[in-house]
Amino acid sequence: MTRDPSGQARSVEDHAGIIARMLEPLSEQPPEETVRLEAALGRVTAEEVRSEVDLPLFRNSQMDGYAVRAADIRSAPVALEVSGDIPAGHTSPVTLIAGTALRIMTGAPVPTGADTIVPVEDTELVLGRDDDLEGAIVEIRRSRAAGEYVRERGSDVRRGEVLVPAGTRLAPRHLAALAAAGVETVRARARLRVGILTTGSELISSGAPGFGQVYDANSVALAALVQESGATVSVRASSDDDPATFERILDEALAQSDLVITSGGISKGAYEVVREVLHPRGADVTTVAMQPGGPQATAVVGGVPVFAFPGNPVSTQVSFVVFLRDPLRAAAGLPPIAPVEAALTTDLRSVPGRRQFLRGLLDGSGGVTPVAGHSSHLVAGMARADVLIDVPAEAEALEAGATVTVWTL
Amino acid sequence: MTRDPSGQARSVEDHAGIIARMLEPLSEQPPEETVRLEAALGRVTAEEVRSEVDLPLFRNSQMDGYAVRAADIRSAPVALEVSGDIPAGHTSPVTLIAGTALRIMTGAPVPTGADTIVPVEDTELVLGRDDDLEGAIVEIRRSRAAGEYVRERGSDVRRGEVLVPAGTRLAPRHLAALAAAGVETVRARARLRVGILTTGSELISSGAPGFGQVYDANSVALAALVQESGATVSVRASSDDDPATFERILDEALAQSDLVITSGGISKGAYEVVREVLHPRGADVTTVAMQPGGPQATAVVGGVPVFAFPGNPVSTQVSFVVFLRDPLRAAAGLPPIAPVEAALTTDLRSVPGRRQFLRGLLDGSGGVTPVAGHSSHLVAGMARADVLIDVPAEAEALEAGATVTVWTL
Repeated sequence: MTRDPSGQARSVEDHAGIIARMLEPLSEQPPEETVRLEAALGRVTAEEVRSEVDLPLFRNSQMDGYAVRAADIRSAPVALEVSGDIPAGHTSPVTLIAGTALRIMTGAPVPTGADTIVPVEDTELVLGRDDDLEGAIVEIRRSRAAGEYVRERGSDVRRGEVLVPAGTRLAPRHLAALAAAGVETVRARARLRVGILTTGSELISSGAPGFGQVYDANSVALAALVQESGATVSVRASSDDDPATFERILDEALAQSDLVITSGGISKGAYEVVREVLHPRGADVTTVAMQPGGPQATAVVGGVPVFAFPGNPVSTQVSFVVFLRDPLRAAAGLPPIAPVEAALTTDLRSVPGRRQFLRGLLDGSGGVTPVAGHSSHLVAGMARADVLIDVPAEAEALEAGATVTVWTL
Repeated sequence: MTRDPSGQARSVEDHAGIIARMLEPLSEQPPEETVRLEAALGRVTAEEVRSEVDLPLFRNSQMDGYAVRAADIRSAPVALEVSGDIPAGHTSPVTLIAGTALRIMTGAPVPTGADTIVPVEDTELVLGRDDDLEGAIVEIRRSRAAGEYVRERGSDVRRGEVLVPAGTRLAPRHLAALAAAGVETVRARARLRVGILTTGSELISSGAPGFGQVYDANSVALAALVQESGATVSVRASSDDDPATFERILDEALAQSDLVITSGGISKGAYEVVREVLHPRGADVTTVAMQPGGPQATAVVGGVPVFAFPGNPVSTQVSFVVFLRDPLRAAAGLPPIAPVEAALTTDLRSVPGRRQFLRGLLDGSGGVTPVAGHSSHLVAGMARADVLIDVPAEAEALEAGATVTVWTL
């Protein structure tokens, strides 16, 4: 049991710093992977993406209408022969005969020799029909300056310019820009692979519980917390209180994971399987001055960081939120979830010497009310909360109206 | 072409209302499905979930320590014989012999006859060892009131009580509570199946573009927007400007989708394939007084709503955000993304008569600056924005410092 030199339990800040430093290498040199655009929503770019093309790819029409020379319509209204038709997707270059108009659709290439598009609203076919332009005559009702309604090649982005910077969390608008430039894959931060190991001979995952058995809430909760933090679950396994069982699933998880989280088996009692297995492997087993969540351990086994949380379901979730959420988000390239302030709606008492993370519910007007009790087994109670109320270690009591820091769940 | 009785283009509000009403049945009677807890993160419950068990399932110990009768330790310090050991996961009931102590682990069932747990920190084995309790004697250093550190059955939630209300977006803490109660599946709102059809003979999805061809940005962007809104993509297909092609992919999409979104082919030019196919099927083809995004159509074909957006990539994305994002979120059980206010950092000019949705970038201090230009082909420019600046239809110019509504992208 490691305590600080004064014999006190370790502070939350100190333990959080230790965990953040253990994960720093994964934030600073995050693993990368190639992701197809179709699967890249929400992923974070590992490098900037520069356009390999000009956008627009070619000079094209901004409107449905007629491509003309500005010089030919200066004296509008004027009637021009329609010398052809350029639908979007027209696949061969066209040259405008001076003194005539070419019908053109939005996005179609502006013909050589044309410098202006006249929107269809400013025109009328005085001879011919929309579906038969042979020998048609169009009246252009108003003049236009050269360049109007022409989208110049490269006017959106030029070849070599940055389309999306490194570290961008890809939203639909980024994917649209990348797709428009013909980009099919991006280098993204890889999702960290997290192994999740729950322990306890009393745990069952399904079926009817026998005497003394309970359902494993931590495996599902940790998996969800990991996914929310931009990582992925590599292994989910559970162990009874036999060290050999835990050692086996630990080794399996270490082989397939960038980091491993365990729950349970870390306190001072007998049958503390995580402590028994990790301590000989160099774990830092400690008590953090917090409630819930006091017993904590960290280890690096075969180069893989292991974070051991206590097993009560509220303790496990609070430990993740307080210690692991922001470091994992940082490694994923996501911003931290900053704590906010709220005003207590009620008096509360606390245990001095330990920082309390009470379950609380925000109202719409800046107030926060504790919900459920303090006890770390109140897993259903925690489901009714939306924040953790952070009560400083030195506080014995706080009065209604006091400002407290709250952590969004 | 439907315009309102005054001959004006339809207002954004009116068109948004029409689309919201078309999707109301899917919000009010959303399709449901059964989802395993492991896959339920972020899903929205279609009905409340009541616990079928008491939690805790049985009276259990809150601490590692000794189970005793409060009456036997009233005169602490006191030495008691250790008459046995109850690890967590112990699978048969135990009865405490009066005047003795049973070692107990956190979470283990409190033995019949015991009413108090003494934490191990308040005890010392004066005879025997942790790993050999045969004939051991424990000294209890301080007295405890009856009930201390005992978690009563049902003290978290009682059988029949609500664990998670209907309409809850499932977060890790909800999944933990459900798992703890042995719930393995939930009824969740089904993700709406959305068909995405892009049109235009000029579109290619990969490879080197030929003369006049462009990469399809809308298919990827719409798919991502749909996923962000809590729906799922049932079909993605693209059509050239041949009505037969479009009709074929439309019919395929209708058969597999709760709604269909199309892009392109809806304006007043020739080769407007969506308009040509949908108009005979009863589409409401209209012009909305907005920029970008004016040409719009809606239809209900075979009972399936179809939303036809214009094809310029900025117009398509803006149309989705303005018209479809919140109704889709409502159908998914998600809250709307409320527009917020910001202060323009620069003067801007607008086209009166049409509501403008300019691309803007928020600074950290409540200011917003237009980025990229007005034109609807500036798809790379839109990637640099994080909001749409909503410029009222009647505005001709706004001055720096003016308050504007912005829509978060």
